Amino acid sequence: MTDDDSAASPPSRRELLRAGGAIIGGTVAGSFAGAAQAETTAPQANNLPPDVPEWMKVPGAPMGSEPYGTPSVYEKGVVRNISKTLKQYISASGRTPLQDLDGIITPNGLFYERHHGGVPTIDPAQHRLMVHGLVDRPLIFTMDDIRRFPSQSRIHFIECSGNPVYTRPYGKTASDLVGLVSCAEWTGVPLKTVLQEAGLQAGARWVVAEGADAAALTRSVPIEKCLDDAMLVYSQNGERLRPQQGYPLRLLLPGFEGNMNVKWLRRLKVTTEPVYSREETAKYTDLMPDGTAREFTFYMEAKSIITRPSGGQKLTARGFHEITGIAWSGHGRIARVEVSVDGGHGWQTAELQEPVLTRALTRFRLPWHWDGQAAVIQSRAVDETGYVQPTLAELVAVRGVNHNYHNNCIWPWRIDESGEVTNGQA
Amino acid sequence: MTDDDSAASPPSRRELLRAGGAIIGGTVAGSFAGAAQAETTAPQANNLPPDVPEWMKVPGAPMGSEPYGTPSVYEKGVVRNISKTLKQYISASGRTPLQDLDGIITPNGLFYERHHGGVPTIDPAQHRLMVHGLVDRPLIFTMDDIRRFPSQSRIHFIECSGNPVYTRPYGKTASDLVGLVSCAEWTGVPLKTVLQEAGLQAGARWVVAEGADAAALTRSVPIEKCLDDAMLVYSQNGERLRPQQGYPLRLLLPGFEGNMNVKWLRRLKVTTEPVYSREETAKYTDLMPDGTAREFTFYMEAKSIITRPSGGQKLTARGFHEITGIAWSGHGRIARVEVSVDGGHGWQTAELQEPVLTRALTRFRLPWHWDGQAAVIQSRAVDETGYVQPTLAELVAVRGVNHNYHNNCIWPWRIDESGEVTNGQA
Repeated sequence: MTDDDSAASPPSRRELLRAGGAIIGGTVAGSFAGAAQAETTAPQANNLPPDVPEWMKVPGAPMGSEPYGTPSVYEKGVVRNISKTLKQYISASGRTPLQDLDGIITPNGLFYERHHGGVPTIDPAQHRLMVHGLVDRPLIFTMDDIRRFPSQSRIHFIECSGNPVYTRPYGKTASDLVGLVSCAEWTGVPLKTVLQEAGLQAGARWVVAEGADAAALTRSVPIEKCLDDAMLVYSQNGERLRPQQGYPLRLLLPGFEGNMNVKWLRRLKVTTEPVYSREETAKYTDLMPDGTAREFTFYMEAKSIITRPSGGQKLTARGFHEITGIAWSGHGRIARVEVSVDGGHGWQTAELQEPVLTRALTRFRLPWHWDGQAAVIQSRAVDETGYVQPTLAELVAVRGVNHNYHNNCIWPWRIDESGEVTNGQA
Repeated sequence: MTDDDSAASPPSRRELLRAGGAIIGGTVAGSFAGAAQAETTAPQANNLPPDVPEWMKVPGAPMGSEPYGTPSVYEKGVVRNISKTLKQYISASGRTPLQDLDGIITPNGLFYERHHGGVPTIDPAQHRLMVHGLVDRPLIFTMDDIRRFPSQSRIHFIECSGNPVYTRPYGKTASDLVGLVSCAEWTGVPLKTVLQEAGLQAGARWVVAEGADAAALTRSVPIEKCLDDAMLVYSQNGERLRPQQGYPLRLLLPGFEGNMNVKWLRRLKVTTEPVYSREETAKYTDLMPDGTAREFTFYMEAKSIITRPSGGQKLTARGFHEITGIAWSGHGRIARVEVSVDGGHGWQTAELQEPVLTRALTRFRLPWHWDGQAAVIQSRAVDETGYVQPTLAELVAVRGVNHNYHNNCIWPWRIDESGEVTNGQA
């Protein structure tokens, strides 16, 4: 299959499930406790199956031992992925375990985090947001004030611009590679509403946002974005923001690189020029091969990754497997995701989970029959602007290797004959 | 305004925000730390605002103290709402704090729970699902088997059928009243796929589902639902199901009453007749005024509730307030939500949060100017079938008061002149 066949229908799931006549699941020849045991009596049709598990024989845990719920003890390994060798933990990042997740919503306890001066513990009753600069009415808002404004909720991803950096080794798992992206339903106030309340003056072309953390992280945002889909958010997946996500107030700039979505937001100053803060000069700029720097690289470009099967996982049987992953673009909706299972020669169009939302993670799925041979699988996203996710070689040819941000390359996974999955460009 | 005006446009948010010329937020005459303090120096335009909060002066918490994140210490009161006077905690329920939440997604830690024999701690490696009865191939599945099938993710609500019961007192908060409803993005396998794998035989008209808890909770499900949108789900908002939600496997029957979405699912038996289990005879039937019982009342009918302002909250100022709440229907999409702010005489059409999804919570919002007078506010949902949420009096006239389930009545909130919000039909 070649590129030209990308629109051709892949085999239906039903056809693939039936391929080779294999049935998933053991037939009821063994006991209920284990399909692998054969030759024992089949369960009586009208009775309980023979092996009642221990946890049915005693009452379970009572109500109320845990007013705020937590995952099963059997899932205790599914946590944020934090490097064991971090030099320090104040300016650091923790990655979402993408390979363990399904769907598009990231639970708040696993949302990626990145901070530059540690996570402040902010009393929302004491927190204030000031709007000043080129405005008719400089204003100070309490959180109660902010919550009185008309609200909206939208599902959007946030992604760190260094996800991943270009530096080898690239890591082993999907989380190691691109775990600095997560997606949630955010609730808050359109920034446009608050700026209109203050009244923009002539010359208002940028808004400088400052966080109330020890780094006072500061970024300049073009006024066009502020008057478009920017929001001041206070809730994430229904509940109030987590401290790591900016509690009690965060600037949300859908599709813009993560650090611009300023957390612990305390100040918005309307200006004519950008402020050229540390995070838009020393950091978050890309050094190009000719020695110039790309700056104000706001939008995260189209990207995708296969999360299952992915690095660190193992296919335990030949036959049907679903290939699934996530795709996203700062520029809008994902239009198409193509998957190759033969090292990039042929590409098939994956199914996209509905509804496909703008600037949100989009789950894709493709049925696949693994024949037990070594294979290289990979995905590439195409967004509604027509932009196609590039290969690493294509990116390096244009940008060189002396920059750390906006690496949105295709990432191949190598599957060996034992079913082990490893990084295809480690 | 009368019913006939329900399609008329309410005043725009902008108009309401400007009503009376009031500005939300304090002007910058006081210090940054408190808008109430007047007459001090305005902040210097190019400097930091004067009062830098304490949490900016020291590094925040480092990475990794909490691999699985939790809410801010300032949100410790936002937990599941569990009665302090429960007679026992093994068969009990915990409610979602709806009045504290935004949007449509319920975070997993606050998802409502209801169990009949406590919450079992199930080892997913030991768990099995058996499919038997009127099938060509009785099958036993491990969790790994289940995860090999083609997956799908969908956002749906689940609601307990006794939400609320008809018994006074009805409670004080939105959570007390209808907190046994929550909404999540579920991932799993279409039940149809698994039944086709086993092969349905002639006479297959019901599927009896059994849970692996100490109650062995058992319900009969019509085969039509099983072949429609029913799913075997293993993930909820991205991560694996919580123990209280059926870890590692749950039957999801979108729109059907909560107890039929059997948790800790271990057995599906295909039959010709329903099994008439305890939960479909002694419980989860409705005793009608003529002495007969309504049984197999599967679908949760259209319902809505205003969550802000709602019981236990207080309006602290006259002027603009957003009225917001949630609506849902087991029969499909919400078509319209109408809000009355005058005790049910006039109704205005609220804005619905997009995308409006079938059998999912739908957030509605209406701008409102509170004039400081006593008021009664309420919402009523209309679903895509044209069904209109009834009043309590309308429900009681048809069903009497000797039943506990499927109370989907309109719930009014009373606001007094001090701004206190209380239950309008307590």
